[in-house]
Amino acid sequence: MGEGFAMRWCLKHEVVVGSRDASKAKEAAEKYAKAAVEIYGSIAGTISGSDNISVAHGADLVILSIPYESIEDTCSRLAPNISHECLVVSPIVPMSRTESGFVYVPMEQHKRTAAELVADSLPPRRRVVSAFHTIAEAKLKNIQHGVDVDTFLCGDDESAVTKLISITKEIPGLRPIYIGPLSVTYQAEMLTPMILNASRKNKLRNPGLRLVE
Amino acid sequence: MGEGFAMRWCLKHEVVVGSRDASKAKEAAEKYAKAAVEIYGSIAGTISGSDNISVAHGADLVILSIPYESIEDTCSRLAPNISHECLVVSPIVPMSRTESGFVYVPMEQHKRTAAELVADSLPPRRRVVSAFHTIAEAKLKNIQHGVDVDTFLCGDDESAVTKLISITKEIPGLRPIYIGPLSVTYQAEMLTPMILNASRKNKLRNPGLRLVE
Repeated sequence: MGEGFAMRWCLKHEVVVGSRDASKAKEAAEKYAKAAVEIYGSIAGTISGSDNISVAHGADLVILSIPYESIEDTCSRLAPNISHECLVVSPIVPMSRTESGFVYVPMEQHKRTAAELVADSLPPRRRVVSAFHTIAEAKLKNIQHGVDVDTFLCGDDESAVTKLISITKEIPGLRPIYIGPLSVTYQAEMLTPMILNASRKNKLRNPGLRLVE
Repeated sequence: MGEGFAMRWCLKHEVVVGSRDASKAKEAAEKYAKAAVEIYGSIAGTISGSDNISVAHGADLVILSIPYESIEDTCSRLAPNISHECLVVSPIVPMSRTESGFVYVPMEQHKRTAAELVADSLPPRRRVVSAFHTIAEAKLKNIQHGVDVDTFLCGDDESAVTKLISITKEIPGLRPIYIGPLSVTYQAEMLTPMILNASRKNKLRNPGLRLVE
């Protein structure tokens, strides 16, 4: 997903790709920047790469695109290096694949939701916003087209949510829909296994969700 | 919801409206039938009314549109009166309203999902299909228009699911999407509090969901 976000937001922002391995991050960033310039002609922002700790330093907004299992470990290393004012976005979905299809782990195993585990591991809770769980990577990366789906947000702090809504709207066709505080983040996270099951059983290609009136 | 289903399916089927009070059911059925004939001109099926136990007798398909709290009681009374071959459809959503908005009770209180509680209370499990959780009542009742939303189905038995998919498709604009066995019914049931939260926070009118490619 990082590739898609970098290539969307580089139009206006300084995007830094993070990885445990700085040289891998730099390599990826160069590739994305080159592709973005090729398609857009020019970009007003930048895409660079660095190790995760350096990325956290001075970031205004971090998209925590990591596995559920790594949340506590990654967050404990980021915590001393990240500003209390930095918006932390969790697109993380605790999911596994069983005989029944894709299942939502917090529901089936009574575990913590992803965004709340992030909030516990990287306080203060107010800066954590849950979003971007259901955007097909292929659509996000295809910058010649809008994504034309909704994304569902949860967060406790109005100003953090408002900030994320604003940056979300910069991506053509991506409509942010706020659904409530972090305590209902399961209602957004659970959509991913649902969509994957629907996709697999009905042979849909890169499906996303839209609320229709 | 019963009104909407009756007025949609009466075009081809013998619909019987059930209630604990037979006279209330008959009154409602007459009202629906009159409205349907007024709009359609004529109908090939019928709408009649009766008490729940009589409705269960001889039904090929029952839509169990009851509160979560009544499942065990209602099902125990229906069980001796309903054929093992009768398809039992659960559109039931265990939901409550809290300070955080609408919440999904099985997730927050570690309770049984609605469709699985129906299956436990009205065996055999194979005839139970979970569906119709997210159709706005106003759209379903407005028979001059299609509903233009998706509905997500769960069930263990392929022939039961196939039968429900077929009858679902008779409602214009209602697309059935199968997502998996009854064990993942929470992925369909949970959509209702999500949509209600989205609706309330974003001032949407009678929203439904669509999977878009």
